[in-house]
Amino acid sequence: CKNQNSQIGSSENATEQKSDPLPSWNEVKSKQNIIAYVEDVTNSESANFIPVSERIATFDNDGNLWSEQPAYFQLFFAIDRVKEMAVDHPEWKTQEPFKSVLENDMASLAKQGEHGLVKLVMATHSGNTIEEFDANVKEWIKTAKHPTKNVGFDELVYQPMLELLQYLRANDFKTYVVSGGGVDFMRAIVTEIYGIPAEQIIGSRITTAYEYKDGKAVIKRTPGLDFNDDKEGKPLNIQKIIGKKPVFSSGNSDGDLQMMQYAASNSYKSFMLYVHHTDEVREWAYDRESHIGRLDKGLDQAMSDGWTVIDMKNDWKVIYPFELE
Amino acid sequence: CKNQNSQIGSSENATEQKSDPLPSWNEVKSKQNIIAYVEDVTNSESANFIPVSERIATFDNDGNLWSEQPAYFQLFFAIDRVKEMAVDHPEWKTQEPFKSVLENDMASLAKQGEHGLVKLVMATHSGNTIEEFDANVKEWIKTAKHPTKNVGFDELVYQPMLELLQYLRANDFKTYVVSGGGVDFMRAIVTEIYGIPAEQIIGSRITTAYEYKDGKAVIKRTPGLDFNDDKEGKPLNIQKIIGKKPVFSSGNSDGDLQMMQYAASNSYKSFMLYVHHTDEVREWAYDRESHIGRLDKGLDQAMSDGWTVIDMKNDWKVIYPFELE
Ligand SMILES: [Ca+2]
Ligand SMILES: [Ca+2]
Repeated sequence: CKNQNSQIGSSENATEQKSDPLPSWNEVKSKQNIIAYVEDVTNSESANFIPVSERIATFDNDGNLWSEQPAYFQLFFAIDRVKEMAVDHPEWKTQEPFKSVLENDMASLAKQGEHGLVKLVMATHSGNTIEEFDANVKEWIKTAKHPTKNVGFDELVYQPMLELLQYLRANDFKTYVVSGGGVDFMRAIVTEIYGIPAEQIIGSRITTAYEYKDGKAVIKRTPGLDFNDDKEGKPLNIQKIIGKKPVFSSGNSDGDLQMMQYAASNSYKSFMLYVHHTDEVREWAYDRESHIGRLDKGLDQAMSDGWTVIDMKNDWKVIYPFELE
Repeated sequence: CKNQNSQIGSSENATEQKSDPLPSWNEVKSKQNIIAYVEDVTNSESANFIPVSERIATFDNDGNLWSEQPAYFQLFFAIDRVKEMAVDHPEWKTQEPFKSVLENDMASLAKQGEHGLVKLVMATHSGNTIEEFDANVKEWIKTAKHPTKNVGFDELVYQPMLELLQYLRANDFKTYVVSGGGVDFMRAIVTEIYGIPAEQIIGSRITTAYEYKDGKAVIKRTPGLDFNDDKEGKPLNIQKIIGKKPVFSSGNSDGDLQMMQYAASNSYKSFMLYVHHTDEVREWAYDRESHIGRLDKGLDQAMSDGWTVIDMKNDWKVIYPFELE
């Protein structure tokens, strides 16, 4: 029972005996800041105490809870789907962006920019039912391997962040994913890994349509963008779906800046956390100039406003769960 | 602790000593159906057992959890707002639909149809921040009185439905409001009455915009329809926001039919519940011909598919909580 645990955790005597809630973190500033914050706002004697109903924590996904290099993992899914679906689409052999994908010409695909990507996503993410798409993703994740790490994409989640999610939940925070990635793609994969149920995953999505035929209700995925959950889309979607301002917000790029600002505007004491990719050996190193997960304005505001920035290389003992084995 | 309660409730010996979970219901078919369903799907020995994570219950609001006659309560809010805002809008004295509202000419307002209503809603529901709107609604509900019942609108909730919500939650169902009404209007009023947090209230909404100025993040309400949470909009929004099919669905009009069909398509045993307004003395009596809350096709499908229909007059001992006093 959650409540019992948190009561034990907050009693004074227990403090010293408590086991480390973030064992994969070095004893660094970021870890100290997080723990000091959580202990402060969950202490009913503190002026900064936050009632349980307002303990909303929002986490970006790509590059924040799992890796995002050399491309968003959802793009690898789209590419693999094109190759599978190509049997029924002989025309793709000569049609871009499918031609490039089928010829494994990633340079040519990249040149087609966002327009090419949207075509790719619509072709592979629509035209089926919610259940069919969910099954596609679940089937794919079983065997798909990351091109350079050579492990499953779902193994490339950040162990220290899994511990952070768990730590927050143990302190009665409600943890949400708020990502630019596709919501149904994430729901199919990350629910169990993160311990976050479908209804606490917010993301971008394509349009859908309701059909009722022969006594059967079905929701079909249709080719159109319903919502882009990025930049100002993040606070807007948080207000729309959660209806509360987060008190804890975590991201890794400029696409999270508005969500950070929104959390920072909370009248309760809030915590803004940026993951800075500084580890080119164990993960990847990139920030201000990166085409994926650019962290530039966000880093400036984090520094000027005193938000906490995780230095992956120095702050984390391990990056991935499999390093613990 | 919820889990402990539900364990006690499901142990065999406790069954006979349990107090009545639905005391404001007569011993009728609808009550028996509800209890038989809940006991079946929460019994881990039953073939129909539903895991806690899938126990999603969705409730329409107007005419289902509170009354909706002689007009949706949100319309009374809009009318009262027009009268308040008129000081700053002298032009409204000659401009429709405001002119009719200011002259208390409801017949003339009704003649302007949906077009007039949309104008009224946009003028009174947009142009401010989320917090300002929330404060407006909370201020209004404190003193506003229903035109014929002469009590606060928030007193016109259905006592038997409050008991049902509580009964479902005691059995680890997650209860949601899924309404055609405005989501932020409902969040400001019903959260405490229903025991349903903001993040479990889904509704129609106008568009919003994010602003960041002088280090302050603000969400503004703008004049445009973002989502109409009615008819097929209900299952679409449920899939979008919850990402799970309901197993329990309750409504009172044809606007809920698609949500009912969606729940009926659940592979888990599901329960579809219609409230039929049959009590012209204590509440109102209306169905197939009503301009508000029309229940026609829904009633047909409920009868042909064996869904449970509440006969308000005969099934409920009391309608409103104040009748208990
Ligand atoms: Ca990211
Ligand atoms: Ca209704």
